[in-house]
Amino acid sequence: MFELESYLETKRDQINIFLDKILPDATNDSRLVKAMRYSLMAGGKRLRPILCLATAEGVGGQVEDVLEAACALEMIHTYSLIHDDLPAMDDDDLRRGKPTCHIAFDEATAILAGDALLTLAFQMLSAAEIKGDNQGSQWLTVIHRIAHAAGFRGMVEGQMSDIASEDKVLSLDELEKLHSLKTGALIEASIYSGAILGGGSSEQIQQLGVYAKNIGLAFQVKDDILNVEGDPKLLGKAIGTDKLRKKSTYPSIMGLEKSKLFATELVNKALLALESFDNRSGPLRAIANYIVQRKR
Amino acid sequence: MFELESYLETKRDQINIFLDKILPDATNDSRLVKAMRYSLMAGGKRLRPILCLATAEGVGGQVEDVLEAACALEMIHTYSLIHDDLPAMDDDDLRRGKPTCHIAFDEATAILAGDALLTLAFQMLSAAEIKGDNQGSQWLTVIHRIAHAAGFRGMVEGQMSDIASEDKVLSLDELEKLHSLKTGALIEASIYSGAILGGGSSEQIQQLGVYAKNIGLAFQVKDDILNVEGDPKLLGKAIGTDKLRKKSTYPSIMGLEKSKLFATELVNKALLALESFDNRSGPLRAIANYIVQRKR
Repeated sequence: MFELESYLETKRDQINIFLDKILPDATNDSRLVKAMRYSLMAGGKRLRPILCLATAEGVGGQVEDVLEAACALEMIHTYSLIHDDLPAMDDDDLRRGKPTCHIAFDEATAILAGDALLTLAFQMLSAAEIKGDNQGSQWLTVIHRIAHAAGFRGMVEGQMSDIASEDKVLSLDELEKLHSLKTGALIEASIYSGAILGGGSSEQIQQLGVYAKNIGLAFQVKDDILNVEGDPKLLGKAIGTDKLRKKSTYPSIMGLEKSKLFATELVNKALLALESFDNRSGPLRAIANYIVQRKR
Repeated sequence: MFELESYLETKRDQINIFLDKILPDATNDSRLVKAMRYSLMAGGKRLRPILCLATAEGVGGQVEDVLEAACALEMIHTYSLIHDDLPAMDDDDLRRGKPTCHIAFDEATAILAGDALLTLAFQMLSAAEIKGDNQGSQWLTVIHRIAHAAGFRGMVEGQMSDIASEDKVLSLDELEKLHSLKTGALIEASIYSGAILGGGSSEQIQQLGVYAKNIGLAFQVKDDILNVEGDPKLLGKAIGTDKLRKKSTYPSIMGLEKSKLFATELVNKALLALESFDNRSGPLRAIANYIVQRKR
């Protein structure tokens, strides 16, 4: 039986050590770097970088092939949280159990810390050249895909739609589109990056695309479920906020029980896509199951 | 005699046509894309992309080699203006003679439009792979340099320092450091990108580094001078704002006349660095002179 908990912990450690090396904690840090570190090292699940690493290993690659990409993805995710939490956007005070960046620092610093993390992500992604890595064209492909996923046809447009759809009742299709932009695109890009840099075949990359699409959506459905019946202590944030904001969610549209069934169905589709993979894809399977079983 | 005005106009046209192709004006544009276009097409000087193009041509390259990089640099510059203008930062209502992005749209949209432009810049810079360009490693070098210049050890840190130093009296050294981060780094990266992608020799790249450093600083000194004695109509923004905000500037530290001499001195140093270049560097020389003579 594959031990997911210890696997996740090992990978989180690898990622945290690497992130810490990139943005080391120094007493003479500028306020900007302090704010970047504050949010980046706030102890997230590290889902995106772990997916990137697990995918690379799943197609026979090494952790070392993708560490920069994995960490860049976490930086992009963290920047998006910092900006989403701002008063002009979701106006959240708590994130990962700690005051949000603009509360711990101030609004200007939070905006700039987000900007700097997004920029640093691309600095990391282009570091291959400096390492003397000869897979330059693969890195360019990865940068292009990640930028597309994170940008105005992906995550940023998703956040725009999310703001615009508060107080609106969405159809299931509209909700799926919103999530596929807001969270799905970057999750898919994480898996794609791992597959490309890990040396996956084009058939594997295609199947991993199906896996990614399904767990990306399952992740969001589960997020909606946790916002209804999760434990605020485990989550590190308040629950019931979607209802309070009159947001359309899977539970609000299809009910809680049907949402749970839907999430399980998506995970099963994801697992099916991995059928032809060997046992190195064990972590990817376990993560798919974890996504609907998680408590935080 | 080299005709700078018509040269600048030709280059601006090339850049605007390319930008327009990337973000075409469509009636069904999302609000996000409208905001991105609003700021990107607001008619700036296009100094950074023109420097990139002129440098590429100065070392014997072609405009086509660097158009993506040039436009990416303008997107990064525009994003930085949108975010700097936000209420939490400089709180400016007017930019390039038009309401700033958060005034014309709203704060959330302005933050996201900035984020999206920054991200799109890196999407552009990695498009070489898609074009089938075989200079992959050069593009990675350029991405790395631009990300470094725009990030927490460059432009973003410069904006942090700028905010922190309002109401403070800076020394000349501190002021130079601030400007080298806030505007110098990206101007230097623009010239570096043009040199690398245009196929410059390492000696040329080194000399262009000296040119870049000097015109970058000259540009800022002139900006400070224009804030004292410029024409608001030509500038498209109010003057006297630095004094109002008690900002340290070259005129406030060394006086107006000495600032003018200093700017000229810097431009002369920049011109000296081009001494060994042939007549293809004519535009670079003319731009250096333009930087201190400009009225806007």
